[in-house]
Parts: sequence; structure tokens; C-alpha cells
Amino acid sequence: MNYSIIVFIAGWVIKVEALFMLLPGIVSLIYREKEGRVFFLCALVFFVIGKLLTLKKPENSRFYAREGFVAVAMSWIILSIIGAIPFVISGEIPSGIDALFEIVSGFTTTGASILTDVESLSRSMLFWRSFSHWIGGMGVLVFILAVLPMAGGQNIYLIKAESTGPDVGKFVPKIQKTAGYLYIIYIFLSALQLFLLILGKMPLFDALCDVFGSAGTGGFGIKADSMAGYSTYIQIVTAVFMLLFGVNFNFYFLIIAKRIRIALGMEEVKWYFIIYFAAAAGIALNLWHTTGILGINIKDSLFQVSSIMTSTGYATVDFDKWPQFSRCIICIIMFIGACTGSTGGGIKVARFIIYFKEIGKQLGFLVHPRSVKILRMNGKKIDHNTIRVVNTYLLVYIVIFAGSMLLLTLDNFDLTTTFTAVSATFNNIGPGLGDVGPAGNFSEFSVLSKIVMIFDMLAGRLEIFPLLVLFTPATWRRNG
Amino acid sequence: MNYSIIVFIAGWVIKVEALFMLLPGIVSLIYREKEGRVFFLCALVFFVIGKLLTLKKPENSRFYAREGFVAVAMSWIILSIIGAIPFVISGEIPSGIDALFEIVSGFTTTGASILTDVESLSRSMLFWRSFSHWIGGMGVLVFILAVLPMAGGQNIYLIKAESTGPDVGKFVPKIQKTAGYLYIIYIFLSALQLFLLILGKMPLFDALCDVFGSAGTGGFGIKADSMAGYSTYIQIVTAVFMLLFGVNFNFYFLIIAKRIRIALGMEEVKWYFIIYFAAAAGIALNLWHTTGILGINIKDSLFQVSSIMTSTGYATVDFDKWPQFSRCIICIIMFIGACTGSTGGGIKVARFIIYFKEIGKQLGFLVHPRSVKILRMNGKKIDHNTIRVVNTYLLVYIVIFAGSMLLLTLDNFDLTTTFTAVSATFNNIGPGLGDVGPAGNFSEFSVLSKIVMIFDMLAGRLEIFPLLVLFTPATWRRNG
Repeated sequence: MNYSIIVFIAGWVIKVEALFMLLPGIVSLIYREKEGRVFFLCALVFFVIGKLLTLKKPENSRFYAREGFVAVAMSWIILSIIGAIPFVISGEIPSGIDALFEIVSGFTTTGASILTDVESLSRSMLFWRSFSHWIGGMGVLVFILAVLPMAGGQNIYLIKAESTGPDVGKFVPKIQKTAGYLYIIYIFLSALQLFLLILGKMPLFDALCDVFGSAGTGGFGIKADSMAGYSTYIQIVTAVFMLLFGVNFNFYFLIIAKRIRIALGMEEVKWYFIIYFAAAAGIALNLWHTTGILGINIKDSLFQVSSIMTSTGYATVDFDKWPQFSRCIICIIMFIGACTGSTGGGIKVARFIIYFKEIGKQLGFLVHPRSVKILRMNGKKIDHNTIRVVNTYLLVYIVIFAGSMLLLTLDNFDLTTTFTAVSATFNNIGPGLGDVGPAGNFSEFSVLSKIVMIFDMLAGRLEIFPLLVLFTPATWRRNG
Repeated sequence: MNYSIIVFIAGWVIKVEALFMLLPGIVSLIYREKEGRVFFLCALVFFVIGKLLTLKKPENSRFYAREGFVAVAMSWIILSIIGAIPFVISGEIPSGIDALFEIVSGFTTTGASILTDVESLSRSMLFWRSFSHWIGGMGVLVFILAVLPMAGGQNIYLIKAESTGPDVGKFVPKIQKTAGYLYIIYIFLSALQLFLLILGKMPLFDALCDVFGSAGTGGFGIKADSMAGYSTYIQIVTAVFMLLFGVNFNFYFLIIAKRIRIALGMEEVKWYFIIYFAAAAGIALNLWHTTGILGINIKDSLFQVSSIMTSTGYATVDFDKWPQFSRCIICIIMFIGACTGSTGGGIKVARFIIYFKEIGKQLGFLVHPRSVKILRMNGKKIDHNTIRVVNTYLLVYIVIFAGSMLLLTLDNFDLTTTFTAVSATFNNIGPGLGDVGPAGNFSEFSVLSKIVMIFDMLAGRLEIFPLLVLFTPATWRRNG
């Protein structure tokens, strides 16, 4: 294990986070809030610490997949611990575990909250909370790679470990450029949404937080009723942008590169929209059938499916009160999630496409045992290694899910609450059903359960393997 | 597709089922019940039909995996439809769909019932219902293979398609002998249990039904309170035998063949017992913690975990009222299930062992990318094809599970009820939680839901692929 480079990366993460903390600091100046001054103090202290850790460039630039996983997992844990400190020092979230839960929920773009009264928080804290979505959405290491030239050419392992999905590749030969392009698309879409929201007369502060939550597909609301109180226009803009941020960013890159035909041929994007409209239609029909009303239910279905499928978690309505068929669709799309290479969570559409192709291949094989069928995605062969990793992903996913549920049931909440609490955190959604539905929160869980869910949120955002590698003893053995 | 051999096999299934119907007929004579006379009529009619279908031996003995799947799937559907007829004609279960649900639940060794008052059924019907567990447990085609010499040497495909688990092999070179050995072990264990139950002063009729339910891991009770009313001795005997019938029958074969060391080295059997005792201990501790009582809770935990893990479904207690941690354990072991090559259901311990080995291999690969690790079970290499099928199995399993749940939610039961209704039928358990808990039943579901669950029970018992092959259009294409 190349420790020096991992320390160096962690140092950079701390420095960058310190700089990010200046923003909520500025917010506190604008709104003349005393609580927010703590951000300047934290920024100073952590910048110095980060600077010290990055003084010496590592001599050994040996850097492989294992180092990538460990660096990313460590970085995210450090990012979270430091990010929680302002909440605790300011006294706005005095409990350490609650503050950690909240900021992990932020960085992992989950949006699950332990706050019982979100509106009582100061503006600077609300800003930090929402801004953490935006940082976490595209990834802090991708950001660092975009702005600074790192030693060695193997930083692809960092992007691979931090980005979502099995097939994140390089757009362009130089990895730094890829990271840069990702952030340019990200910033452009964010700015466009901000512009449209302000056009709809949303207050600037609210609009910023809305954008952070949509772009990172996080979903922290700054109002007790999430998005229900805003105008239909604002809700529609938000729904559309959540959906856009759940699209594989390769799609936008191909559009920009004028390779329209290849972009439109992306199977994952096609199925992402098919599933989206099918789920929304199913819910709208179910609600129409139950309530006899169509119009508003179409809007709420489109919004809510966009919000849950992209793993954002904003709510315009308490979908926990929907009939069971609609609640079941909500549950299913929680697991499906958004596209790979997007800011969204869940198991991801691309993985499900591969799963279904595997089923099709196997069925063909049973009927015609001598048939040879090669799995293809977007016309290209899916290599054996990818299939193996995608399969193992599901297996580990199920094991962690079941283990988490078992530990959470010690709190004796009903099974729907427990099941969706794990689903909402592990898939980085935010709200679940039952006691953790849109009208509820995560405050009542025990410390053990909160630790489990903090692990689940990190595992969900980093797609499990970085955390597993971090906790595998073999990683830390000498000569390992 | 070789149609003639499939018709021939179906004919034999009908003949054998007709003969089996004589048994409940005899029961009706003993207890002087008019309702049961219908069994003699059915036996006569179906024996003639079966005889007609088997008059001509098929000339073409070409018989491959595909024919095996189709023959098994068709046989089980025919078996079920014919088996439901006595219920309808006698008027004891007048609804056709309910009668079909009940007998499919019987043959697939599920034990889920639509009866609201089981004790009002005549003895002959109760006998037929329980006896269907015993027939379905080891498999009707295995039975036929055991007693008659079939054309061709490729009947292994029939056993493979009807038996559970990915690695059912032949004990001995001749497949007919293997089938015979399976039934000899099955009959011996059944007789032993019957003897011990009668020793415990259980009435003969009750003891027979208890044995049928335990041996087939079915779980139809003949009392409203399932097994709660019987003595502790009877409950313990039942718990032990349920557990024994959930063991891979290879284990017993090896013991008989005096290959004790190989038998004791079977990983699946080892893990089956480890999971069993761990789950029972977890529940016992949880109940002790909640109720302050230990003794009776140990007995109920051991009984209930044996009943659910082997997919039997007998109950000594209403475990739906247990605390959530215990309910969650019940849910998890529903999915794990028993050993392959046993009469039990669920996904099976052997598959989970392979899943965990895959995870271990992948983790090793992430830490040491150049490592080469071969998956082994019982010291033997698991071939690539087995791993692929086992992985696809889980994928199809999840898809069918989610689809079934979605259709069932149209009935608007709460999610715990819906989830465990699918789990209890698809894993061939019987009772679930909530409205389908040990104190409930399946009568309130709509016809659509019952059809879905009938499919799930058959898919669960036949391990999905035979039904999928049956419903794949490619199977039926010309030249196919």
C-alpha cells in the first residue's frame, strides 16, 4: 500500500473542504447570523492542517485500483467528519452522531434528515447542508482532479472509485480533462436550473438550495413541507432537472461532441426514460383510480417518480399515504435508481440492463443449449470481468441490505419503516415510507442504527467496494 | 421438441395420481364420509385417461434438457388441475381458483391455505391435502422413475428439472436406482417419524398428516392452531424431522454408503445447521429480552426456525406477534431456505454458499488484482456454468418477486402482508406475516393475486427455469 499518496490526497480533500466552508461563512455574513461564523474558524484550521499534509509531494507515485479504493473511502470519511464539526460547534446539531448522520446524508446526496424542525436552522447551516449535496454529487476527488495536476497518470482509479456505475470511462485521453468536462456540464446544468428558478420568482437562497439538492440528487429541503409549498412552475422545473441530473453524463458529453446518433443510441438512457414514464404512468393511473382526480396526480406522479428514481428525495406530496400499488412502485424504483455516471443513486439502470441480458442469455441457452450469445451494450461486447463485478455487486448489496435491516429491527420499528429506512439510505434517496416517510424523519433511531445507516449511505454513494476494500484485513497486510 | 414423449410422461403422471387418489378414498370409507367417495370416481376416470395416453410408447426417445423442463412443468400443471377436481366436485372448496390454489400449495409443499376454517373439512379431503405434500416433496416424476423403466437413458434431465438445487447428481450410475434410493430414504424417514409420533400418543390420522407435512416440508395443518395444541414431545419430534427433511439427501446416501467422512465434510449441511442454530439463538435471545422468559421461548424458536427455514410452515406460536428483530430473522431465513436436494424450499443454502464465495473471490481480486482464485465446494471446483446459472437464478428470482409484489399490491394489503405473501408462496413456506401470518390465511386475495401466487408456488417448487422455458416462445417455434 502506498500510504504517502493516500495521505497526500486526504490532505488535498481537507484543503478543498476548508475552502468550500468559506461559502456558508459568507452566507452568515449576508444574513448577519452569529452561528455561521464558525465556518471561518473551521476553514482556517482545516486549511492549515490540509496544507501541512500536502507540503511534501509523494515520491512514490505507484497507484493502483486498491490505492484508489482506499483513498476514496478514506477521503469521504474524513470529508464527513470535518463537515459535521460546524454543526456541533455552533450547537445547531449538538449531538455528534446526529451531525455526522446529517452531513453524511448531505455528501452522499441521500437527503435523509435527523432534524425534527428544519426551519429552525440558521441560513448558513442550511446552506452548508444543501451545498454538501452539490459537492458530493459529482465527487470531491473528481473536483480536485479537475483543478489540479496530480502526480502520475493513474488517477483514473480515483475517478473510477468515486464515480457511479460499472463502466465509467475516460471521455478524452487525459483524465484531468475528463474530470474537467464532467464539472463543466455539472456547473452549466446547475446554472441553467438556477436561472429558470429565479425566473419563476423563487427567492435566491431557496433557489440555490433547490439547485444543490437537484444537481447532487440529494434532496435536503429547507422547508418542513419540502417542495409542496412552491409554485407548480418551480416544481416542474425541479422535476425536469432532477431527471436531467440522473442521466448518464456521457450522454451530454456526446451531445456536446456532436455525436448525436451515438448519444441517442445509449441503451441506458433510453431505458431510464422508459422506466421513468412507465412508473409515473402506473402511479398516476392508480391515483386516478383511487381518488377520481387526474390532473394534479399526473404532476405529483411525474415529480415524485423523478425525485425517487434519481434518488433525490424531494416531495410535493406525502406519498406514504398513497395506495399500496403506488407505494410499491416507489419502493421498486428506489432500487433501480438512476443512470451510471450520473449524480443519482440506486443500483443503476445499466446494471439492470445487464441483469436482464443475462436472464435472456440463460433462457436462450436452456432452449438451445448449443447457442452462443454474447452480451452487448450499446453495440459493444460487455466483457466477462464487468459481468462478474456487476453480479458480485448485487450479491454484496443484498448481504449488506439484510444485515442492516436486521440491526435496525432492534429498534422495533415496523418492517415497512425499517425496510425503507435501509432502502432510502443505502440507495441515497432520503425519505422512505412509514415513520421515515416524507412527513417523518430519522431522529428516533438509536445510535447503533444511525451508525449502520451512515455506513449504508457511504456504501451506497461509493458503490460498496471502496468501503469493503477499506475494511478487508488483506488490504492492510504487509507485502499486501 | 419431442411432443410424443412429453404426452407419454404426462399420461404416466395422470395414471399415478389416479392411483394416489385411492388413498383418500379409503380414508373416506374408514370414516364413513360421503364426500370422499368422489376420489374413487376421479381415480377411475383419470386412470383411464392416463392409460389411453400411455398406450403407445413413443418411438422417438430424443430427450434433452428442454424436453425435461417442459415435461416437468406440464406434469406439475396437470397434476395440480386434476388434484383440485375432488375439492370442487365434493363442494368442500366450491371455487375453482381456491381449490387450485389449495392443491398447488399442497403439491408444491407450500402449505398456504385459503381455508378460513380448516377443521370443517372432511377427513378424506384433509388427507388428500396433506398427502399432496408428501407426493410433491420428493417429486412425482422422481417417483415414476423409481418404479418404472422409462425409455432412453436421458431421464437425468427429468430428475434435474424436478429436484431442487444446482447440483443434483446421480448417486449411482443408473438414474432409476438414484430415484429409488431417494424414495427409500424418504419412506424410511417418514416411517420413523410416524413411529415416534404414535409413540407420543398422537392419533394415527393426525400423525399421518403431520408426517406428510413434515416430510414434504409442506406444513398444511389439520387444526386451526396448526401444531400449538399438541404436546411438547410431538412438537419436538416434528421440529427434528422437519430439520432432517431439509438436509441434502446426498448426506443420507453417503452415510448409508459408509462414506461418513465425505458426508460430514459437506459444506452445505454444515452451514445449514450453523444458520439454523444461529437464527434460533437470535430469536430466543430476542424473545428472552422482550418477555423475560427463556425456556418456552427456546422451544418455540427451535421449532419455528426449523419450520420456516425448511419451508414447512407449521406453527406452535403466532410469530407474527414477535418483536421486529425476530420477525426480520424469520423473513431472512424464508429466503435462505433449506439444502439443495432436500424437500425444502427457498433459495437454498448451497446457492448462498456460492454467492458468498463469489464475494470473497471478488474482494480478493480487488486487493490483489493478479490473484487467481478458483471457487470450490466440498473440495471440488465449481464449474463456470454452475456459477452462471446460480447467478441468473437470483436475477430471475428478484424480477419475479418484484413483479408478483406489484400485482399483489393492487389488492391494497399493507406492504408487510404483500411482501411476505409473495415470500411465503414463492419460497414454498406457507404462512407469512401480517394478514397472512400463522393466524391468518390467503382467502381475502383477489383472483388475480391467487393466480400470481399459484405461479409463484409452482415457480418456487420447480426452481423457476422449467416454468420459464414453458412460457418462452422460442421453446415452441418450429425447428426449435
